[in-house]
Amino acid sequence: MSKKEVIVLQDILGTNKKIAAEIREKTERRGILTVNFLSSPGAGKTALLEKIAERLKPQAKMAVIEGDIETERDAERIRAKGVPAWQITTGGACHLEAKMIGKILPEVDPDVDFLFIENVGNLVCPASYDLGERLRCVLLSTPEGDDKPKKYPKAFTTSDAMILTKADLLPHLPFDVEKAKKEALELNPKLKIFLTSALTGRGLDELIDFFLASRRELTRHA
Amino acid sequence: MSKKEVIVLQDILGTNKKIAAEIREKTERRGILTVNFLSSPGAGKTALLEKIAERLKPQAKMAVIEGDIETERDAERIRAKGVPAWQITTGGACHLEAKMIGKILPEVDPDVDFLFIENVGNLVCPASYDLGERLRCVLLSTPEGDDKPKKYPKAFTTSDAMILTKADLLPHLPFDVEKAKKEALELNPKLKIFLTSALTGRGLDELIDFFLASRRELTRHA
Repeated sequence: MSKKEVIVLQDILGTNKKIAAEIREKTERRGILTVNFLSSPGAGKTALLEKIAERLKPQAKMAVIEGDIETERDAERIRAKGVPAWQITTGGACHLEAKMIGKILPEVDPDVDFLFIENVGNLVCPASYDLGERLRCVLLSTPEGDDKPKKYPKAFTTSDAMILTKADLLPHLPFDVEKAKKEALELNPKLKIFLTSALTGRGLDELIDFFLASRRELTRHA
Repeated sequence: MSKKEVIVLQDILGTNKKIAAEIREKTERRGILTVNFLSSPGAGKTALLEKIAERLKPQAKMAVIEGDIETERDAERIRAKGVPAWQITTGGACHLEAKMIGKILPEVDPDVDFLFIENVGNLVCPASYDLGERLRCVLLSTPEGDDKPKKYPKAFTTSDAMILTKADLLPHLPFDVEKAKKEALELNPKLKIFLTSALTGRGLDELIDFFLASRRELTRHA
């Protein structure tokens, strides 16, 4: 990168960090657990959020912010589950930024317990942008291959949890779950790891428990 | 984006375009068909290149440039097929740029018939960077879902071919091949479409024929 490019990027990230800190302060003060979902396109972020909505809705209030380059499809899928959802279409931009979340936040019911943010499908750029989340979760779908943590490290080093998705396809794939876990933990020893399938429900109880426990911890300290 | 950001981006893209034009002129004059492979992480770019190497090597000379954020793994896989390969590790950057290709080009045997470039696994950013290629191919793996062309349009509108990969998984997936084709063609009516599996070999003959025919057309005009 040229010197000018580095300076502009530092400006963008600096401003983003400041807005993200304000979002974190505001949401945590209200007891809202904010979760940022990162992954490649088609790793199953929306399908997982649909299942989370089904399981979490009877016991907690949630809202979803959907990030996409084009189309309103994802927000519509979440609204069909009876959960309020906002769609951000970035019109080409490859990641969400904190200011985009900041604009929507005043519209979100301040009494929600959980605010899930589905980032643009991109395993690279979103990792550099703090959205003010309390938890960052990277999804890795089993068809993508067990070598992805080492190849796209930043999404894994900056996350609190790695959610392996589409476990139902494992019988048809060369994906080595233990290798993926081992290499992800080498990058980030604190990573919580979940093996899930939105289709069969595998691993979803553990994941919901993790979100509920994370929120209890937040409200205990709030 | 701020005005300053827009100006810097225009500078980057302008410089990139100039270098890309030089690369195109140089390679096409030598009769080298340059192909830029774009896709999400784990769509099977390297697996497809391994199969292309097996089938093309007996009848043509080829070389591969691999783009990755970290690790040399992909170039090693290609070299294991007896094909010269260069690894670019971008160290965080989310796409290849023409200047990176320009640096390697003097090392590539000027007598090769095909130069394949595997971009960083990212369905968004690489679409904005011309690498001087003659053909751009976007890979869409069936597990990613048939809705991806409309959600990530630029990779599809700027490509010459869409290669659907992992067709062997179709019996286990809700992927609708006709819907994916239809939506991709709505975005780009000139798109050539191939349905392939590196595992079973499905569609690879048609793909190899396409590359060979594209090279014949290039050398006819050169």
